[in-house]
Amino acid sequence: MDINNSINELGKLGADLYGKDFLLTWEKSDAELHAVLKIAEILKEMHAQNIDAAMFKTGLAVSNFRDNSTRTRFSFSSACNLLGLAVQDLDEGKSQIAHGETVRETANMISFLTEAVGIRDDMFIGKGHTYMKEVAEALDDGYKQGVLNQRPPVVNLQCDLDHPTQSMSDLLFIKNHFGGFDNLKGKKIAMTWAYSPSYGKPLSVPQGVIALMTRFGMNVELAYPEGYDLLPDTIEVAKKHAAASGGSFKVSNSMESAFQDADIVYPKSWAPFKVMERRTALLEKNDHPGLKELEKECLAQNSKFTSWECDEAKMALTKGGEAVYMHCLPADITDVSCKQGEVSAKVFEKYRIGTYKEAGYKPFVIAAMIAACSKKKPAEVLAGLMKAAGKRVL
Amino acid sequence: MDINNSINELGKLGADLYGKDFLLTWEKSDAELHAVLKIAEILKEMHAQNIDAAMFKTGLAVSNFRDNSTRTRFSFSSACNLLGLAVQDLDEGKSQIAHGETVRETANMISFLTEAVGIRDDMFIGKGHTYMKEVAEALDDGYKQGVLNQRPPVVNLQCDLDHPTQSMSDLLFIKNHFGGFDNLKGKKIAMTWAYSPSYGKPLSVPQGVIALMTRFGMNVELAYPEGYDLLPDTIEVAKKHAAASGGSFKVSNSMESAFQDADIVYPKSWAPFKVMERRTALLEKNDHPGLKELEKECLAQNSKFTSWECDEAKMALTKGGEAVYMHCLPADITDVSCKQGEVSAKVFEKYRIGTYKEAGYKPFVIAAMIAACSKKKPAEVLAGLMKAAGKRVL
Amino acid sequence: MDINNSINELGKLGADLYGKDFLLTWEKSDAELHAVLKIAEILKEMHAQNIDAAMFKTGLAVSNFRDNSTRTRFSFSSACNLLGLAVQDLDEGKSQIAHGETVRETANMISFLTEAVGIRDDMFIGKGHTYMKEVAEALDDGYKQGVLNQRPPVVNLQCDLDHPTQSMSDLLFIKNHFGGFDNLKGKKIAMTWAYSPSYGKPLSVPQGVIALMTRFGMNVELAYPEGYDLLPDTIEVAKKHAAASGGSFKVSNSMESAFQDADIVYPKSWAPFKVMERRTALLEKNDHPGLKELEKECLAQNSKFTSWECDEAKMALTKGGEAVYMHCLPADITDVSCKQGEVSAKVFEKYRIGTYKEAGYKPFVIAAMIAACSKKKPAEVLAGLMKAAGKRVL
Repeated sequence: MDINNSINELGKLGADLYGKDFLLTWEKSDAELHAVLKIAEILKEMHAQNIDAAMFKTGLAVSNFRDNSTRTRFSFSSACNLLGLAVQDLDEGKSQIAHGETVRETANMISFLTEAVGIRDDMFIGKGHTYMKEVAEALDDGYKQGVLNQRPPVVNLQCDLDHPTQSMSDLLFIKNHFGGFDNLKGKKIAMTWAYSPSYGKPLSVPQGVIALMTRFGMNVELAYPEGYDLLPDTIEVAKKHAAASGGSFKVSNSMESAFQDADIVYPKSWAPFKVMERRTALLEKNDHPGLKELEKECLAQNSKFTSWECDEAKMALTKGGEAVYMHCLPADITDVSCKQGEVSAKVFEKYRIGTYKEAGYKPFVIAAMIAACSKKKPAEVLAGLMKAAGKRVL
Repeated sequence: MDINNSINELGKLGADLYGKDFLLTWEKSDAELHAVLKIAEILKEMHAQNIDAAMFKTGLAVSNFRDNSTRTRFSFSSACNLLGLAVQDLDEGKSQIAHGETVRETANMISFLTEAVGIRDDMFIGKGHTYMKEVAEALDDGYKQGVLNQRPPVVNLQCDLDHPTQSMSDLLFIKNHFGGFDNLKGKKIAMTWAYSPSYGKPLSVPQGVIALMTRFGMNVELAYPEGYDLLPDTIEVAKKHAAASGGSFKVSNSMESAFQDADIVYPKSWAPFKVMERRTALLEKNDHPGLKELEKECLAQNSKFTSWECDEAKMALTKGGEAVYMHCLPADITDVSCKQGEVSAKVFEKYRIGTYKEAGYKPFVIAAMIAACSKKKPAEVLAGLMKAAGKRVL
Repeated sequence: MDINNSINELGKLGADLYGKDFLLTWEKSDAELHAVLKIAEILKEMHAQNIDAAMFKTGLAVSNFRDNSTRTRFSFSSACNLLGLAVQDLDEGKSQIAHGETVRETANMISFLTEAVGIRDDMFIGKGHTYMKEVAEALDDGYKQGVLNQRPPVVNLQCDLDHPTQSMSDLLFIKNHFGGFDNLKGKKIAMTWAYSPSYGKPLSVPQGVIALMTRFGMNVELAYPEGYDLLPDTIEVAKKHAAASGGSFKVSNSMESAFQDADIVYPKSWAPFKVMERRTALLEKNDHPGLKELEKECLAQNSKFTSWECDEAKMALTKGGEAVYMHCLPADITDVSCKQGEVSAKVFEKYRIGTYKEAGYKPFVIAAMIAACSKKKPAEVLAGLMKAAGKRVL
């Protein structure tokens, strides 16, 4: 990959995300998505070639994680550090936010010298995306009123609706695997539920994947046991995208049907959105017995579908028996991380390094979102860094 | 504001804080205070103009918070990052300090490559300031004995006596509001108690405000319900400063009296210092039933003074009905953050953006304290940065 | 010390640690040890002379602490910051690691933009070093498979076998005290057990010290009450090193014997390795009553040996009564940090500043390990920094 060529192409996209946030892929134009993807690949190659990409000399990046996550935490830290930002965690347990402060005030108080805000809030249906928009509006207000010298973009590190840093990384991984976006057209991807001995896994990954992949002319088949529905709105998004891109979108209740002749499979557990709604209500009431009861009920329900495992027999149904296996990690691997899980040990091991590489795009996708949303002319900034040609590591 | 002019003025002040700490405003000369205020405004303007202010290429800043605080934590992080320092938290719960190490030893162990130490310790009357002095003395010793290559300044991020980063930010806010320090002369500021449904709020804000504002020729009226006294020593400081500056200092037991014709009002809850002394004793003994009992007693006492709310009727008493409302945030806002609080929703909303801007000075005040105390010639360092004219953000 | 001369000497050592880890001193050649020690001293002097040593412009350093530690945490942070790296904690309590992820996967997920990994894992006999090797192998695999652009070195910040950052700091301290490595030949060092009112202190410090000091021609006497044995393998290492270096290694059960004519004394408590093995088994089973019982038994056992205190009478036995006293800190000081401990207050106070200086080498030793293991030609990198002559602090 020639970095300077890519920077030229970036400039020609004419995308303008300056002053905006990155919350949902389906709010973005094709050019905007391509700009972020292009910047991500440029930054990844600059890193590989040891070229300094620090476009900030100083500045904070706020990380606000309402759920635990090693991977996303490190991805965000890595991304910010690559750009020159220092991460400061907003740990709401440790802060006065717990004492009744409004989102509006806190968003401003933490942003006087802040250049990016990353939020992960995926546990509560109907809450995560709403919260991110509230933060974004508070920052808009603060910037317009002269409280803030700059308007830090909000980056969605996973919400109840979408997981754009994941789905965009997934997209780059398969784009490069198949040799370009054009080659994705007509490819079949099976986004399927898979059995897990845990429950309550968020919906944002399958929702994000069906919403994004349908945009690139792919044939997306979403498959899950009856009752494990996604949020209806995101299904509508996928349908609309498929119609516009010349791809297709199909929902079935058979893992085998989805795997049949698939080029790519993405088997992953999630909880039905109606269960997540009930769970959200119980969590809000701090109803621990109710949560225990719901968990018991759901695990019993899940256990009817242990056959939804990605094993060698199902992989044999795919195109030439050689579909690309994808996962956002960590996977529930049968006989490795659990007794019975989403994927057999043999299948996972075959594709393990691929899933690591899939994950390896994420820091650069996050960095690209920050760069795209905080720079008026990201192509010029990148060109300047290339010209300076500073070594990242001596 | 012309930055280079300000740097010239800074140089002419002849203040020398190099090698010192910033613990109490009343230990500092007028020139020293003006130097810090000037540096804060220079750094704020450099940030606004996107000029890199990183006067450290590497170095740690230790944050030692013995109380929770989002705002102060972010202010300190922002300040250190602006100067080029990386923050490392000294979390005493997580460290061996809990195992009986002496302050003396720890202060040195954490400071081999440290350029600034920020401490917040405001919960225990008679303890916070004493602890900061102990740390400072340990660092003096380590530096003199050749243990440390440098002597990192200790910055008081709130103690039992003073809250200098707050009061200095407050001062800059009103100085700019009224168009200069000269215009503060003769202005009336009402520092008043206000009702809150919580108890045990520290005394350092009112103490810091009366001690600092009396120095600038202002007419300071401190008002609180009988029994809600501040530390007597800080009252003496305010009296002395008022006498010297040509301002005045008056204590009353009427919010209305204080608001009458005031140019500025600062209504804020606090606990009587005698209560804080009892609380300190109970906390030291880990006497939870005693603390519960004290809380109950104090809330009952507080509830006699719910009329001490900053509402529109009281604001109407102020100069032209248009006094500046100040608060260190977060405020207890009636019908917003609590049922009945320090300020009515209508008054707060009118002045909300102002209070955000008031808070916006704090990162720069903290950075200025660090710069002033760690640089032999801060004006020269700043002039060098201006000459280099590095962009903070590409 | 002339920095450029030292850099020349470093180049001539011909050591090559690039792409390796620093886990155990006894796995390293003499040239490799000397290279790390030399780089540590160069970095320490560059810091003293205010020369910027940031050999990374961006990059993460992962800290993985499975035990609490203020000092090691700050040493690691300081070291990484000095080199230009930003520390990101891998807190396993907060992460998905607790949910059954494999070490292999996590090691890669946190390392996409990581340049160094520091691990402290000293609580479990048979586990710490093994864990570090697992992480190292996972990183090897990820690097070879193209998952990672770089192979971050793993630095042992204390394991069940060795504490190399401590022992190397100790070595630099006494090397400089006695005026060079040659002057260490024939010097007697007493590494002795000492009484402590706590139990379960790790074995890595005495093991690391006897294994390292025997390499430099010193006469090492290890003394402890019967039953307080170290891991047999490390005893064998010390014997072998003594034989090769022309020094000696002796084990006794008398503090007085060890102190007799000693040039250096290092009295420090530890738990017998058989106790640590039992403790490990109990910890693995989460057997709290068993742990309580073991603690009770061990404290009773310890209490038979309260006479193993480093007091003035025992110091009088040493060479001229003036042996150097060493400790890794914090020490259990009689009448200061406990009623009866490892060292009398009078002896400790006499040598206190020395122990601080001993600790002061650690950040630079850690930085040197990272530099040596991550740079193909560390001497050239250091020479480049010297030529650039950037000021670390303006």
